[in-house]
Amino acid sequence: MKAAIVGATGYGGAELIRILQQHPNVILQSYHASNSHGESMVKRYPHFQAVSEMDLANIDPGQIAADADVVFMATPSGVSSELVPAFMSEGARVIDLSGDFRLKDPRQYEKWYKRKAPEKTVLDHAVYGLTEWLDTDVSETQLLSNPGCYPTAALLGLAPLVKNDLIDSNSIIIDAKTGVSGAGKNPTSITHFAEMNDNLKAYKVLEHQHTPEIEQILVGWNPDAGPVTFGTHLVPMTRGIMTTIYADASQDMTAAKLSDLYKETYENSYFVRIREQGTYPGTKEVYGSNFCDVSVAYDERTNRIMVVSVIDNLVKGASGQAVQNMNRMFGLDEKAGLAFAPVFP
Amino acid sequence: MKAAIVGATGYGGAELIRILQQHPNVILQSYHASNSHGESMVKRYPHFQAVSEMDLANIDPGQIAADADVVFMATPSGVSSELVPAFMSEGARVIDLSGDFRLKDPRQYEKWYKRKAPEKTVLDHAVYGLTEWLDTDVSETQLLSNPGCYPTAALLGLAPLVKNDLIDSNSIIIDAKTGVSGAGKNPTSITHFAEMNDNLKAYKVLEHQHTPEIEQILVGWNPDAGPVTFGTHLVPMTRGIMTTIYADASQDMTAAKLSDLYKETYENSYFVRIREQGTYPGTKEVYGSNFCDVSVAYDERTNRIMVVSVIDNLVKGASGQAVQNMNRMFGLDEKAGLAFAPVFP
Amino acid sequence: MKAAIVGATGYGGAELIRILQQHPNVILQSYHASNSHGESMVKRYPHFQAVSEMDLANIDPGQIAADADVVFMATPSGVSSELVPAFMSEGARVIDLSGDFRLKDPRQYEKWYKRKAPEKTVLDHAVYGLTEWLDTDVSETQLLSNPGCYPTAALLGLAPLVKNDLIDSNSIIIDAKTGVSGAGKNPTSITHFAEMNDNLKAYKVLEHQHTPEIEQILVGWNPDAGPVTFGTHLVPMTRGIMTTIYADASQDMTAAKLSDLYKETYENSYFVRIREQGTYPGTKEVYGSNFCDVSVAYDERTNRIMVVSVIDNLVKGASGQAVQNMNRMFGLDEKAGLAFAPVFP
Amino acid sequence: MKAAIVGATGYGGAELIRILQQHPNVILQSYHASNSHGESMVKRYPHFQAVSEMDLANIDPGQIAADADVVFMATPSGVSSELVPAFMSEGARVIDLSGDFRLKDPRQYEKWYKRKAPEKTVLDHAVYGLTEWLDTDVSETQLLSNPGCYPTAALLGLAPLVKNDLIDSNSIIIDAKTGVSGAGKNPTSITHFAEMNDNLKAYKVLEHQHTPEIEQILVGWNPDAGPVTFGTHLVPMTRGIMTTIYADASQDMTAAKLSDLYKETYENSYFVRIREQGTYPGTKEVYGSNFCDVSVAYDERTNRIMVVSVIDNLVKGASGQAVQNMNRMFGLDEKAGLAFAPVFP
Repeated sequence: MKAAIVGATGYGGAELIRILQQHPNVILQSYHASNSHGESMVKRYPHFQAVSEMDLANIDPGQIAADADVVFMATPSGVSSELVPAFMSEGARVIDLSGDFRLKDPRQYEKWYKRKAPEKTVLDHAVYGLTEWLDTDVSETQLLSNPGCYPTAALLGLAPLVKNDLIDSNSIIIDAKTGVSGAGKNPTSITHFAEMNDNLKAYKVLEHQHTPEIEQILVGWNPDAGPVTFGTHLVPMTRGIMTTIYADASQDMTAAKLSDLYKETYENSYFVRIREQGTYPGTKEVYGSNFCDVSVAYDERTNRIMVVSVIDNLVKGASGQAVQNMNRMFGLDEKAGLAFAPVFP
Repeated sequence: MKAAIVGATGYGGAELIRILQQHPNVILQSYHASNSHGESMVKRYPHFQAVSEMDLANIDPGQIAADADVVFMATPSGVSSELVPAFMSEGARVIDLSGDFRLKDPRQYEKWYKRKAPEKTVLDHAVYGLTEWLDTDVSETQLLSNPGCYPTAALLGLAPLVKNDLIDSNSIIIDAKTGVSGAGKNPTSITHFAEMNDNLKAYKVLEHQHTPEIEQILVGWNPDAGPVTFGTHLVPMTRGIMTTIYADASQDMTAAKLSDLYKETYENSYFVRIREQGTYPGTKEVYGSNFCDVSVAYDERTNRIMVVSVIDNLVKGASGQAVQNMNRMFGLDEKAGLAFAPVFP
Repeated sequence: MKAAIVGATGYGGAELIRILQQHPNVILQSYHASNSHGESMVKRYPHFQAVSEMDLANIDPGQIAADADVVFMATPSGVSSELVPAFMSEGARVIDLSGDFRLKDPRQYEKWYKRKAPEKTVLDHAVYGLTEWLDTDVSETQLLSNPGCYPTAALLGLAPLVKNDLIDSNSIIIDAKTGVSGAGKNPTSITHFAEMNDNLKAYKVLEHQHTPEIEQILVGWNPDAGPVTFGTHLVPMTRGIMTTIYADASQDMTAAKLSDLYKETYENSYFVRIREQGTYPGTKEVYGSNFCDVSVAYDERTNRIMVVSVIDNLVKGASGQAVQNMNRMFGLDEKAGLAFAPVFP
Repeated sequence: MKAAIVGATGYGGAELIRILQQHPNVILQSYHASNSHGESMVKRYPHFQAVSEMDLANIDPGQIAADADVVFMATPSGVSSELVPAFMSEGARVIDLSGDFRLKDPRQYEKWYKRKAPEKTVLDHAVYGLTEWLDTDVSETQLLSNPGCYPTAALLGLAPLVKNDLIDSNSIIIDAKTGVSGAGKNPTSITHFAEMNDNLKAYKVLEHQHTPEIEQILVGWNPDAGPVTFGTHLVPMTRGIMTTIYADASQDMTAAKLSDLYKETYENSYFVRIREQGTYPGTKEVYGSNFCDVSVAYDERTNRIMVVSVIDNLVKGASGQAVQNMNRMFGLDEKAGLAFAPVFP
């Protein structure tokens, strides 16, 4: 099958190229960015020399839809919502990596993204693709909305607790930490090496746009789920997200019971690895891979459950999961093109 | 006045040398480590060349007590408890940086440190020195126990809430992150550069020995204070601690009210800087300094208060606060020798 | 074909597992380390969970030789020379990643490695495998000696100059910089994160054991080649080597002429990428990949040629090149299992 | 005495504030930046809260000259040359940290800086202030030009060799490596954390504007000194410069002879520390301090001398040396305000 990437010059796009050029079932057909026709991808990303050397092309939805079986939109929030309708009407099947089609309630989108929501008619087509918990048949889905990086880590960690009603509905606190590539390719003062190196920063405190995304899914899983407190931090590393989740147990609990529950829940999910009880992951242990590693602990002293989950924000938190969703949509083995090991150390 | 440092070869000791060699009221008399007599400090720490070039000496409590007005014990937990009694009986005034004399209840010490507690008779002399909240007159104190690095950051952040009874007593969660120097000078696999670089790790989850220290002080401030959940993480940076604290508000609250409260509380505390409402600190902004920077936020959606506090673990979290306590014990200006700016960037 | 890894617990071994578990022509048969029988690899390297979960086995040369078509020795220098003879006499085909079989002159080995050289009879079998310049037919070779990390980067950069006699034979200076994983998995004070982070160190100055390896190959290429000055530095990053090479031009030279020469020389070498004239590589642009990126410049002011070459020390500088050599030895496509892109950013 | 800082919002300016606010003989009178009147310095640099809280002021040369005894120009190259004449004609004594007044030959300036050179009449007043080798009486100097960061490290390392005619005049190669703060406060793609972290880059190869500055001083020391080859690299750390210098010995040499020569040469220079023979510095050992640490080695095999020198680029490489020069100009102890220890680890 043939794939096109729109918004190929950001980190999400570049990571899609890295993954798709090795995918056994995919031909990487073309990559696109606004006003970039004929520009060399290798000039922007010299690491692609000899790996993937096509030139960039402009964004022509009709042409792209005609040439490709699947279109990845690696465009920023606000841009996807403008471009996707044209691709849809050309009949393309679209996997969108932005935040534009994740929130079902346009008022939530407008509150948190501070920007106009996408058309309701388009939005209604979008299927949210947290792959491990995707229970819709997506073999015909035209618009798949790929989850945010933080929500992926948080929701994979929370699912067993929320779905099984094991915690107080209003007690969820997510303390999230991300590597700096999560802030994208544009240099800013917060991502300036001289200041971010050897530094740990709290940012977007209580204002992160991934908050309602997490809450929407939790409520979908369990109508009792209340709002979450979501603390976000920038860590001096390139890749990686860790979410440390705290919630009050609502039932008699033990660490062993939790550990068993998590192992059973994800028994058939290749990309979710439950760590041995009493051990905890580092983000480097999933670096460059599509894995989400999860540990769970129980604090008897406070009757609180603590979950630690880690992902590579650019892989399972973005482009890797997008390919995993593509595999699902096109009836391929879910692991196809994604079974590479983490790069460690 | 004259100061001696016992356990000078660890990071706490080295940081004491850095601070004390510039202190206007102190002569750095000698530094000591077991079986080190005559060894060159500069060989171990070449950055001290031309700065402080004395040789190390063995630990002779009688001699040291005779020669110095104050003795800093920068020895590890377990070692301090063995050495301090001899110094006490020689009449020395001791500031201990280890965890040995912080917990008033020997059973707690033995549970969390997994080691025999110090003699009760010695322990009873120890005054816990979180300087900003030290209400004992320490002008005659013989044994001052310097707080742990995490407790310093957490307690300075929690004090206004707990002392003013503004939060539910059982709702405190402290998500703590530390730079790697907190693990000390001995190389281990967890602190190996190749694996810790570009990595973020959860460690000692729910087992950190600073937990009961925090709880003991909180209960001292407010008998209702319950146990805390304490999550600990290792961040790929050399210095710095951030504690992100979450607690449920027990009263009507607003962000502005909180901000005012924190500013008033620490109005006369030079080393605690309350950040402008809506801005949050990075650890680098206190790098190399004795400051603790604190921000406070209120999450209306969940009725939760969130506090972010940062320190340099080796300064305010160890040697800087030890000198601040020395200043207090000897009637000096609390800022003496400590008013240097953070090194930024 | 079936492969076994001896010395699997070091970084070279772990990187072999990462590469070989995805190699289309290889079954990873077993991994081995001394006195490790039955130990879990995943316990040592949790990132291998779900990827490669065999237990470690002891080192039984007869058994291993019987079960595997190729044996990778990822053992340290000094250990390989002890183990390899047994494997040879069992008829195994061996690729050795240590320094033991690289130097043809035992006196050089003993001088630089400060240890007894391997048996001359075994040494004489060893073929040095800088793959791009391997002109021996290795389809029957029993012992292939994989190059050192520094020599790989330096020699690929120097080859066009030395082979074409373009520089003064005594003018070569190699200023080399390595990431910390090059120092191996054992924690030491020089690789302690708290001290190596935000630090740049000169080490093993003029004493690095890769010096005679470089010189031996250069003389093989051009009998006039003189000794080189080799400066070595440790850079605060996990992976990556850069060698900056300086040499006096012995002929009329221009930057364009040099650029053309390098492009022609490596036209058919997939893993050597000559960068566009006037642009220079960063180590991150080869991170996790088997590429060696090379730039060349000419300083008219001083009539000096400057070459910059970068590799990932664990891939092209060790395990990747070892697999490339295996592909050559067994008649496979040289790119088989190695055509993955760098992980960037 | 009173000091003003013009261009206070860059890293050089911020570092001057850090140093001067602790200087025993200086009152920090005011800081200035274009169109910044009334802006809060603490907003830009929160780490200055409680340390130095004045607002920024516009640049009014008459007012500043009237109020301050010394004016530090921490403005970029190109800006200093525009501003300095006005300060001079108001009678101010100026220490300029930019590159504008370092090169005596305007053609060299225009070639390397690609910009119009400053007025010859002003340029002629400028005294180049590599403090350890400043043999002019500067007690009346009106315009002192502070050296570049690379030249400071390189020249302090080269001086004993060049002044004593110990090397071949055309053999000098300087392989220089800098931390990222050397690139200034403006975020760019080369200093973007996600790409610079875990990366080592060659940049401005053979084009760095510090090249003619080094050569000008060398020729001043020894008319035979030829051009140098100057390789420049960006290292993933915030502060620090290392220059590794290679040159051919022109006389019979031994390592011990070199070591003695360096120790004697810098015997009375507090800020230049010659390391014990056979040991080599890391940049972290001078972090945050005004020291320059130097090691020297002799490679018998190639008859080449190798010098390694390290500085903190923002202190000895910029603001620290500027204060050292101020001390000299105003008859203060050269160490005044600068005798603080490196921050290690």
